[in-house]
Amino acid sequence: MQVSVGHLREISEKSLMGQGVAASSAQLQADLLIEAELRGLPSHGVQRLPRLVARLKAGLADPQASGDVRETRAGVLSVDGGRGLGPVVMMQTLGRLAELAAGQGIALAAIRNANHIGMLAYYAEAAAARNLIGIVMTTSEALVHPYGGTEAMLGTNPIAIGIPTGARPYVLDLATSRVSMGKIYHHALTGTPIPEDWAVDAQGRRTTDPEAAKAGAIAPFGAAKGYGLGLGVELLVAALAGSAFAPEVSGTLDASQVANKGDILILIDPTAGEGSAAGLAAYLDRLRASRPADPARPVAVPGDGMRARRDRALCDGVEIPQSLHDEIRALAEG
Amino acid sequence: MQVSVGHLREISEKSLMGQGVAASSAQLQADLLIEAELRGLPSHGVQRLPRLVARLKAGLADPQASGDVRETRAGVLSVDGGRGLGPVVMMQTLGRLAELAAGQGIALAAIRNANHIGMLAYYAEAAAARNLIGIVMTTSEALVHPYGGTEAMLGTNPIAIGIPTGARPYVLDLATSRVSMGKIYHHALTGTPIPEDWAVDAQGRRTTDPEAAKAGAIAPFGAAKGYGLGLGVELLVAALAGSAFAPEVSGTLDASQVANKGDILILIDPTAGEGSAAGLAAYLDRLRASRPADPARPVAVPGDGMRARRDRALCDGVEIPQSLHDEIRALAEG
Repeated sequence: MQVSVGHLREISEKSLMGQGVAASSAQLQADLLIEAELRGLPSHGVQRLPRLVARLKAGLADPQASGDVRETRAGVLSVDGGRGLGPVVMMQTLGRLAELAAGQGIALAAIRNANHIGMLAYYAEAAAARNLIGIVMTTSEALVHPYGGTEAMLGTNPIAIGIPTGARPYVLDLATSRVSMGKIYHHALTGTPIPEDWAVDAQGRRTTDPEAAKAGAIAPFGAAKGYGLGLGVELLVAALAGSAFAPEVSGTLDASQVANKGDILILIDPTAGEGSAAGLAAYLDRLRASRPADPARPVAVPGDGMRARRDRALCDGVEIPQSLHDEIRALAEG
Repeated sequence: MQVSVGHLREISEKSLMGQGVAASSAQLQADLLIEAELRGLPSHGVQRLPRLVARLKAGLADPQASGDVRETRAGVLSVDGGRGLGPVVMMQTLGRLAELAAGQGIALAAIRNANHIGMLAYYAEAAAARNLIGIVMTTSEALVHPYGGTEAMLGTNPIAIGIPTGARPYVLDLATSRVSMGKIYHHALTGTPIPEDWAVDAQGRRTTDPEAAKAGAIAPFGAAKGYGLGLGVELLVAALAGSAFAPEVSGTLDASQVANKGDILILIDPTAGEGSAAGLAAYLDRLRASRPADPARPVAVPGDGMRARRDRALCDGVEIPQSLHDEIRALAEG
């Protein structure tokens, strides 16, 4: 069914506030999920809300925690999320880190013990909105097999980069897996098969069945290179956040375990460098105007399609399954 | 022909010293090229030496410059390379930056106006040898077409990551192109065709001819994701180093233009975080022991193959074309 953003926001916030989440935190968590819906990423949208409410009920998510921030060096924050909601811990950390980055030029925060932080583009955009370059990484359950392997040993380990370019920032947000497990869950939810190069089943065989893929492993993107990059994220996050490695990670896809993955946020003040935002914007326009492979499809810059979808959805509303809507409305009504 | 590492080192250093390069700088530049040969990366090996000597002769590379380092913030160095040799400027910068990173926890250097820095793994390893995490990026001539495009608009924009894990560091070094242009040059040099998914010709058509590819554009790795990542490097480097964008970059593949690309080095002190190097090493061993797709080929960690090739080549020597050897020897003899 098609629902208005205002309605979806209202029932989402209410369902969180019903579990003791403060209004401002409920707004932030709901905003993150709804921004994912607006961008056409339902895997990171409100389908995660019922699980989040269950986690709050079970004490796996603390409705009030916003993270205990400790400055270990002049440019480094070590954050114990205290089981707080991911976006709440992330945005508090981003605020503190932005002050450090303005002084130091570059600063890093490593976060453990926070719940799922959702769509990384959200934080990359928040950094760019403060005229800072933002680099975000997070780990997850073991969902991805190594290049040349068949067992789920790595997280989907996404990376996001936000770079101010004047009016519209460059925003890249990519999982280092062939697809996100959220997308495979969405296929399972809607009963549609997956392409055969996405995943293997529990026995290590290629599969088009999303349910079999959930028990198996997703391929890394870009063969050996994507594997190396995802492994780099796995190691960087664990080295700095002291969080668990993928095979021991839980708590972002279930409602029974504490979330023990880690998150990294790096902020850089571009005014400490020598370039200009206007120069970046002009270059991106040249890219868009360059010769396309298909004359009917101009060259795009990451973030272009996302912004177009968002603009449309703000008018038209978003499409969510009726059953999901009814579930969230019931949660909102307590 | 097979040559010993000692001999190759001697004639390489001499050919540089003949152009007024100090012994220590010649050793460093030669070491970088020879380390590439040892790892089986001839595209970044001594085949670049005759061009480098020509650049020194033409005044496009300054034999004495090591870079003018300015601290723009407590955690940021802005470096004017002064046309210095890439490895000389990079290693001087790395030394200064390591001191900053030890104090700040994280520090960044942005470098412009230095010559080609070569194989990025060299610097990632140098960082890890100092017990620091190193992230290295560099830009290049426009050699890569956007995803959905056919014109060379981006550099091959490699990224390297070095992470200390106890004895052997994790070392990732990847071009965000499907292959490096160096590899296409090597195919051209040896007269072997390239796979058809590597590149397009000047008209935007797929080609297997390395000469046609040199006039065309290389595909990004990993489709839209690899394109987004390479573009992220392009923007990050230009934003911080103030260097040129790919379509205006020259000076790493020719002997007629100043090198105006940029380089970024980020160092992070892992002791500012919460993880342990031993934990990382144990996880990597679990990865290696996980179920392979082909029982005859165990799962590898990036850097494993490189180290094995290096160990072998240190004993056996390296294979270089006779004509290249003779050219370098002639340069060494003045």
